[in-house]
Amino acid sequence: MTNEQRYGAGIWHFATYVDRYATDGYGDPRTILDAIDLAGQVRDLSVVDLNYPFFGGEFANSQVEEALQRNGLGVIGITPEIYTRVFAKGSFTNPDLGVRRLTHELVTEAADVVRHFGAEYVKLWPGQDGWDYPFQVDHGSLWKASLDGVGQLASENPDLKFVIEYKPREPRVHMSFDSVSRTLLGIEKIGLPNLGILLDFGHAMFGGESPADSAQLAIDYGRLFGMDVNDNLRGWDDDLVAGTIHPIELFEFFYTLRKNDWQGVWQLDQFPFREDSVEAADTAIDFLKLIESALDKLDLEGVRDAQANHDSLGALKLAQKALYSSY
Amino acid sequence: MTNEQRYGAGIWHFATYVDRYATDGYGDPRTILDAIDLAGQVRDLSVVDLNYPFFGGEFANSQVEEALQRNGLGVIGITPEIYTRVFAKGSFTNPDLGVRRLTHELVTEAADVVRHFGAEYVKLWPGQDGWDYPFQVDHGSLWKASLDGVGQLASENPDLKFVIEYKPREPRVHMSFDSVSRTLLGIEKIGLPNLGILLDFGHAMFGGESPADSAQLAIDYGRLFGMDVNDNLRGWDDDLVAGTIHPIELFEFFYTLRKNDWQGVWQLDQFPFREDSVEAADTAIDFLKLIESALDKLDLEGVRDAQANHDSLGALKLAQKALYSSY
Amino acid sequence: MTNEQRYGAGIWHFATYVDRYATDGYGDPRTILDAIDLAGQVRDLSVVDLNYPFFGGEFANSQVEEALQRNGLGVIGITPEIYTRVFAKGSFTNPDLGVRRLTHELVTEAADVVRHFGAEYVKLWPGQDGWDYPFQVDHGSLWKASLDGVGQLASENPDLKFVIEYKPREPRVHMSFDSVSRTLLGIEKIGLPNLGILLDFGHAMFGGESPADSAQLAIDYGRLFGMDVNDNLRGWDDDLVAGTIHPIELFEFFYTLRKNDWQGVWQLDQFPFREDSVEAADTAIDFLKLIESALDKLDLEGVRDAQANHDSLGALKLAQKALYSSY
Amino acid sequence: MTNEQRYGAGIWHFATYVDRYATDGYGDPRTILDAIDLAGQVRDLSVVDLNYPFFGGEFANSQVEEALQRNGLGVIGITPEIYTRVFAKGSFTNPDLGVRRLTHELVTEAADVVRHFGAEYVKLWPGQDGWDYPFQVDHGSLWKASLDGVGQLASENPDLKFVIEYKPREPRVHMSFDSVSRTLLGIEKIGLPNLGILLDFGHAMFGGESPADSAQLAIDYGRLFGMDVNDNLRGWDDDLVAGTIHPIELFEFFYTLRKNDWQGVWQLDQFPFREDSVEAADTAIDFLKLIESALDKLDLEGVRDAQANHDSLGALKLAQKALYSSY
Repeated sequence: MTNEQRYGAGIWHFATYVDRYATDGYGDPRTILDAIDLAGQVRDLSVVDLNYPFFGGEFANSQVEEALQRNGLGVIGITPEIYTRVFAKGSFTNPDLGVRRLTHELVTEAADVVRHFGAEYVKLWPGQDGWDYPFQVDHGSLWKASLDGVGQLASENPDLKFVIEYKPREPRVHMSFDSVSRTLLGIEKIGLPNLGILLDFGHAMFGGESPADSAQLAIDYGRLFGMDVNDNLRGWDDDLVAGTIHPIELFEFFYTLRKNDWQGVWQLDQFPFREDSVEAADTAIDFLKLIESALDKLDLEGVRDAQANHDSLGALKLAQKALYSSY
Repeated sequence: MTNEQRYGAGIWHFATYVDRYATDGYGDPRTILDAIDLAGQVRDLSVVDLNYPFFGGEFANSQVEEALQRNGLGVIGITPEIYTRVFAKGSFTNPDLGVRRLTHELVTEAADVVRHFGAEYVKLWPGQDGWDYPFQVDHGSLWKASLDGVGQLASENPDLKFVIEYKPREPRVHMSFDSVSRTLLGIEKIGLPNLGILLDFGHAMFGGESPADSAQLAIDYGRLFGMDVNDNLRGWDDDLVAGTIHPIELFEFFYTLRKNDWQGVWQLDQFPFREDSVEAADTAIDFLKLIESALDKLDLEGVRDAQANHDSLGALKLAQKALYSSY
Repeated sequence: MTNEQRYGAGIWHFATYVDRYATDGYGDPRTILDAIDLAGQVRDLSVVDLNYPFFGGEFANSQVEEALQRNGLGVIGITPEIYTRVFAKGSFTNPDLGVRRLTHELVTEAADVVRHFGAEYVKLWPGQDGWDYPFQVDHGSLWKASLDGVGQLASENPDLKFVIEYKPREPRVHMSFDSVSRTLLGIEKIGLPNLGILLDFGHAMFGGESPADSAQLAIDYGRLFGMDVNDNLRGWDDDLVAGTIHPIELFEFFYTLRKNDWQGVWQLDQFPFREDSVEAADTAIDFLKLIESALDKLDLEGVRDAQANHDSLGALKLAQKALYSSY
Repeated sequence: MTNEQRYGAGIWHFATYVDRYATDGYGDPRTILDAIDLAGQVRDLSVVDLNYPFFGGEFANSQVEEALQRNGLGVIGITPEIYTRVFAKGSFTNPDLGVRRLTHELVTEAADVVRHFGAEYVKLWPGQDGWDYPFQVDHGSLWKASLDGVGQLASENPDLKFVIEYKPREPRVHMSFDSVSRTLLGIEKIGLPNLGILLDFGHAMFGGESPADSAQLAIDYGRLFGMDVNDNLRGWDDDLVAGTIHPIELFEFFYTLRKNDWQGVWQLDQFPFREDSVEAADTAIDFLKLIESALDKLDLEGVRDAQANHDSLGALKLAQKALYSSY
C-alpha cells in the first residue's frame, strides 16, 4: 500500500466512566478538551469521533477546533447523545412525540457540527430504542418509528452521510437496530444513498455474528461507511482493548476489508475503565499494526484456494503463519 | 373465533434420536410409519411435516398416505433431508458442484411429494450451510450460493411455497440463514413471491431475538408462511416442550399472531430425547390451549394502551392476569 | 403456614441509576431517606437492606431510623459500598494494601451499623474483586486475598453474620465469587460458622445455574443465610421484575425453600431503570404471593413421586396446574 | 526443560461422529483399532485415552495392545462409556437402581483395563447425570447420588486414580458436575486422595470460567490430575482445534501449568466432524509447540511484576511479544 493506514478513536475512549455501582466514576471527570489532549498523546491517531453536545462544559466549536489543531487531530464523525436521561425510553421510538422531536433537533444540530468540522458522517447510535420486557411495545410500530426517524434525517440532509451503529442490547434489554442484517433491512427499506452502517467489531461478536461476514454483507450492499474495533467475551459489549481476546477473528475482519479494497479509518471504540486510556489506545494500535504486517505477509492466493474448498485447517495454517510471525 | 385452531408437529417429534455420545440412540429406531402411528395417538394433532426421504426404510408415498389416513392426519410440509452425511460440508453452499446438484435434485423430489400430498410447502432447513472456523469460507460467495440455490428452486416451482427455517447454529458453528433479518434480506434479494419463512420460536430465542418481534417483522414483509414452537434456555436449540420455560414470551408470540390475524397451524418442533413423545406433544398442546384461553381473556385494548406508552408493568399485569387464571 | 411470609428489598430498588451512557442518570438523584419513603409506599414490605455509607448526603443513623420508623420498616442487612471509585481495582483483592485496609475499615463500620439497627447480617458484594483480561492477575493470590479479607472480618465479628452475594461478572469481566459452588468452597475453606451465602436468583440464572439446585446446595451446607429475587434473560444481570420472564424456575426455587422449611425474608433486588419503583416492587410481590398460593396448592407428594423417577413431564404438569390457576 | 513435553489425545478424536441430524454419520464407522492406526500417524502423539468398551466390535485387550504397540502409543486413561442409551437418564444418578449398578460394574471393569494397560486413571465423564427441566429432579438427592457413586468406586479401588471431567451441559441441559468449583466441592466432600479433576479447557471456557483460574484452583487443592484442550465460541462445547479461536487464554492456561510446575500430558479432546482427524491433531500440536516456545521466551519476572499491580496491559504486552514472535 502506498497510502498509510489512518487510525481513529471515539473521543469517549479518553473520558472517564460511571456505571451503576461506581456512581462516583472510575476517575475524575474530564471535559472534551481534556479528552482531546489525551488523544493527542496517542502515537498514531489521526482522527476522532466527537460526542455532541461536547461533554464537561459549554464549549464552542472553535474551542474544540483549537484543541484538535494543537493535537494534530481531525474529526471523522459526530455522535449526538441521543441516549441520555431525557431519551431513557427511546429517541426515535420514544412514546412521547416531544422527545422524538428533541431527537430530531439534536441530530440536526449534530449535522451542522459535521459540516463545521468537515467530518464524514453523523453517527447514530440509538441505544435507548428498544424494549426491556415482553409485551412492553408494539413491535411493528417501534420498528416503523426507528425507520421514520432515521429516514427523515437522512432525507433532510442529503449532503451528509449518516451511519447507524447497531448493537444487540445495552442499555436496553433489546435494541431495535440489533444486528447487521436488521440494520441493512431497515436501510434498504428507507432506500436513501446517504445512509450506511458503522460496524463495531465487538457488537458483531456480541451478537453471534462473524465480523468478517458482517463486513462482507454490508460491503455487498454498498453500506459499510465506517467501522471500529475493540474486544469482548462474546456475551457483553465489554469494549476491551482490540486484539486481546480474539486476534484471529480480528485478523479475518481486516483481511475481509483489504480483500474488498475497503478504504477507511481503522477506529477504536474501547472503554478503558481501569486502564490508562493513552496506553490502551497505543496497545490496540500496536496490535492493529501487527495485523497490517500479517496482512502483508499472508499468502492470499493460498487462502483463496483453501476457502474454495472450505478447507478450514488449510486456511488457518496460513493465517497462523502470518500472524504469529509478525511481532 | 369460529374456526378451531389446528395443531401440527414435525414427524421427527415421534422418532428416536442419536447424538455424539449416545451413538446407540435414545431408543429403538422407528420408521416413519411407526412415527405416524404415534402421532395419531396425540389428542389434538391435525397435520404433520414429513422428512423426505422417508426414514426407517423404503416406503412408497402410498404407504405413508395409508398410515396418515388411519391416523386422521394431513401433511403440512415436506422437509428434504439436506443435512445428512453427503451434505456435511453444505447443501446449497457445498464446495462440490456435485453435492449442490444433489441438493437441487433432492429438493425437487421433495417438491413432488408436496404436490402428491397436497401439502402447503417445501421446508428448507439448510443446517449444514455455514462455517465452523474463522478464515474457512469466502463469506460473500457462501451467501450468494445460499441465495442462488434457494432462488432457483423457488423459481422452478412457482406453484409451490418454499419456507426457510433459520437458526443461529448447529450442526455448524454458524449457519448461513442465521436470523429472521438475514433470512428476510435474502428473500427480498431473491424477490420471488413463493418464498417465505418458517419461524421456529426456539431458534428466535436462541438467536437473542424476541419471537414476537420476529413474527411481526416477517408478517410485515408478507413472509410468515409457517411457524413452530418448543422451548430452550436461550443458549442452545434444546427443543424442549413448549411453554415449560418461557410461557410469557410464548404468550406474547401468539398474541402477535392473533393481533395480525395470522391464520395457520400451530406446530411443534420438539425433540423429546428422554420423554414419551406422545405425552410430550400432549403436554405442549395442552399448554397451547391454555394460551388460547388466555388470549380470549386478555384485555386487548388495555394492552394496546399500555404499549402506546411502553408501559411494561401495565402490559405485563394484564398478561399475567390472563395467563395465570387460565388453567 | 401460621406465620405470614415477610418481604424485603434492597433500598437501592428505590434509588435512581446511572450507567455509562445515561451519565446524567435515569432520574433525579434521591437520598436514602427519599428511598425509604418510597419503600414505605410498597404494599407489603417489611424490611430493607441498606447501603452504607448512606447515599445522597451525610445522614446519622438516627435520621435513617426515623425514616424507617415512619414507614414501618425494619433492617435486614447492611451492604457496605466496597465497589465505588476507590475500589475500582478491587476491595479485598486490591493490589494496594491501603485500599485493602480501607475495605476492612468500611466493612467494620458497616458491622457496627448492623448492630445499631439489629439487622441480621453484613452483606458482602465484592463486585470489583476479579479481573478483566487474561494474564492480568495471579489467580491463586487473588483468590487467597478474597478469602483472607472476608475471613478476617468474620473472625473479628463473631457476633454477626456475614453473607457473600456471588455473581458471575459485572462490573468486572469476571468476579472472584462467581458461583454458588466457588463461594461455598471459599466459605468451607475459611471454616467459620457466621459466614454464609446470600443467593440472588438472577445471579444464579446468569451463571447457568438452576437457582433451585443452588439453594439446595447452600442449604445442605448450612450456608443459605439470605436470598433475593429478580429476573433476567440469563445472559446478564438485568435485575428485571421477579416473575416476568422465568416464572417456572422461580416457582421451583421457592418450592425448594419450602421443602427445606427455609424460613427467611423473600427479598427483591431489582433495578427499575425506567419504571416506577413502587409499582415495580408491588408487581413483584404480587407475583410472589401468587407463587405462595401456588405452593399451597401444589401436589407435593405427586411432585415427589415424579421426581423419584426423574419424570419431567409428570412433575411439570403438577407445577403448571398449581401455577396457572393461582391468579 | 530437560524432559520433552508429551502429547496425548482421546482416541475418539480419530473416530467418526453422528449427531441428531446427520444420523448416517460424518464418515464411515471406524473401530478402535482403525482409530489407533490413525492416531499413530500424528507426528507427536505419545499416549491416548481409550473409550471402554472398545468401539466398533468385540476386541480383546491384546488386540488393542498390539495396535498401540505398532503405533508406538501408550495409554493414559480409560473412559468407560457411561453415557450411552442405557444411561440416558443418568449413570450414577439414574432413578433405576439396576442402571446405577450397571454403572458401577462398567466402571469397575474399566478400572481393570486401566490396570491392564498400566494407565494413569479411570476417567469419569457422567454426561447423562443431570436434568433437562425445572421440577424434574430432587436436587439434593441427585447430587448425593453423584457423590455416592463416584466415592464408592474411588474407595473400592485405592490403587487407582479416578478423574472427573466436568462440563456445564450436553447432552443434558444441565450436568451435575458442571464446573471446577462444584467438582472440587464434591471431591472434598468425598475426601479420598485418589480422586481428582481432568480439566477440559473448552469446558471451562463454555462454563464462563477462566481456564487458567480453574487450573490454579484445582492445583491448589492438589486435584489437577489431568487436562485436555480444544476450542469453542464459549457458548457450546464445540471441540474445535486448540488455539484456533482463543490463543491468548490457551497461552495463559499453559503459563499457569508451567508456573506451578505441573507435569503431565498435554492432551487433545477435539471432534473434527468435517476435518481430517490426523491433520486436526497435527495442527493443534503444532500450535501447542508454538506455545511452548512462547513460554520459553516469556519474561516471567515481568509478568509477575505486572500481575502484582493487576496491570493488564503490561502483562498482555509481554504475552503478545512472546506469542506473536514464536512461529
